[in-house]
Amino acid sequence: MRYHKIPDETVRRLPIYLRGLLFLSEQGRQSVSSRNLADFLSVNPWQIRKDFSYFGDFGTRGVGYNIEKLIKKIKKILKLDVVHKAALVGVGNLGSAILAYPGFRPYGFNIAAVFDSDPKKIGRKTKGITIEDVRNMRTLKRRKIDLAIIAVPRDAAQQTADALVKSGVKGILNFSPCYITVPKKVKVISLNIAMDLARLPYYMPIS
Amino acid sequence: MRYHKIPDETVRRLPIYLRGLLFLSEQGRQSVSSRNLADFLSVNPWQIRKDFSYFGDFGTRGVGYNIEKLIKKIKKILKLDVVHKAALVGVGNLGSAILAYPGFRPYGFNIAAVFDSDPKKIGRKTKGITIEDVRNMRTLKRRKIDLAIIAVPRDAAQQTADALVKSGVKGILNFSPCYITVPKKVKVISLNIAMDLARLPYYMPIS
Repeated sequence: MRYHKIPDETVRRLPIYLRGLLFLSEQGRQSVSSRNLADFLSVNPWQIRKDFSYFGDFGTRGVGYNIEKLIKKIKKILKLDVVHKAALVGVGNLGSAILAYPGFRPYGFNIAAVFDSDPKKIGRKTKGITIEDVRNMRTLKRRKIDLAIIAVPRDAAQQTADALVKSGVKGILNFSPCYITVPKKVKVISLNIAMDLARLPYYMPIS
Repeated sequence: MRYHKIPDETVRRLPIYLRGLLFLSEQGRQSVSSRNLADFLSVNPWQIRKDFSYFGDFGTRGVGYNIEKLIKKIKKILKLDVVHKAALVGVGNLGSAILAYPGFRPYGFNIAAVFDSDPKKIGRKTKGITIEDVRNMRTLKRRKIDLAIIAVPRDAAQQTADALVKSGVKGILNFSPCYITVPKKVKVISLNIAMDLARLPYYMPIS
């Protein structure tokens, strides 16, 4: 089931709320008010209430939101209530950092395949996964892996994306500092570290 | 000068527009319509027009926006019209990837200092910069470095942030997968790769 009315900006914030709720749940908390959640995440409480209103209201006046219920609901909306197998392409510094990253598991992501084009890396094991030849990407469909993370150099990004799309991948997280073009049915989220850094000076006092 | 009325969501999008405009400028383009810029960046044209309206109108009907003018204006608003010196803390896989990242320069960022706590790394040169002992972070104020990138393991993130704040840093880009607490005057932007990945399944067709 897809909730068609949820705006992209809300979808962008849902994982942030989820992250905060998972953290509070780990601390043993059972409920939280929109104000406390907002303070904790440094966002506006009205924003939270508005975002949550898109998928029904779980708040009880004076008690707040039931954390477990809310986690379940957000995971369901984001389709994170099942385990997703992902492929990582590129095992340079960035790829290695991604592979070592402990933050994927709470969201149900499992890096199940790793690819590189460097003959020196192919066949080696890293974090318990054997690095495969990029040509093996064509096996992704059969292996039911439809998510991929691109961490290859800029020049190889588009051809990697093309190969992934051909292999049936439906979602790409792109770390290469360039645009990639894919058919409409494929969703790309591009991370550009510089763009996040670029927002910082705006908020800094003039020194 | 700070444009107080610009909403955070617009500030978040400005670097994305800037990135697209820089790309078009490199291609030799001189003007672009909001529709073409929107198509290029996969955003809504009305969103672009609304965002641009916060800082004045540069569009000419039938001609579009003057790219160079717009680049200048956005850079000025984001305070990217001067070179920013940044410090990188943590030279593991992620830190090394950040250091090798070619995308900072167009935004006027210059990684001018690199720190690590590992005695085996301290004193070594990487990308032309000598890795310094984290205890040297106290010299940042004197060196007029007020931006920092945290790429240390989760357990060391908060103490790193504390030391940076003490050294006069005003803006932090946090790559560690955890919350860090800083005084109100310091702006933190946290990157959490998992949160970007967490948005992907929502947009993917059910397979």
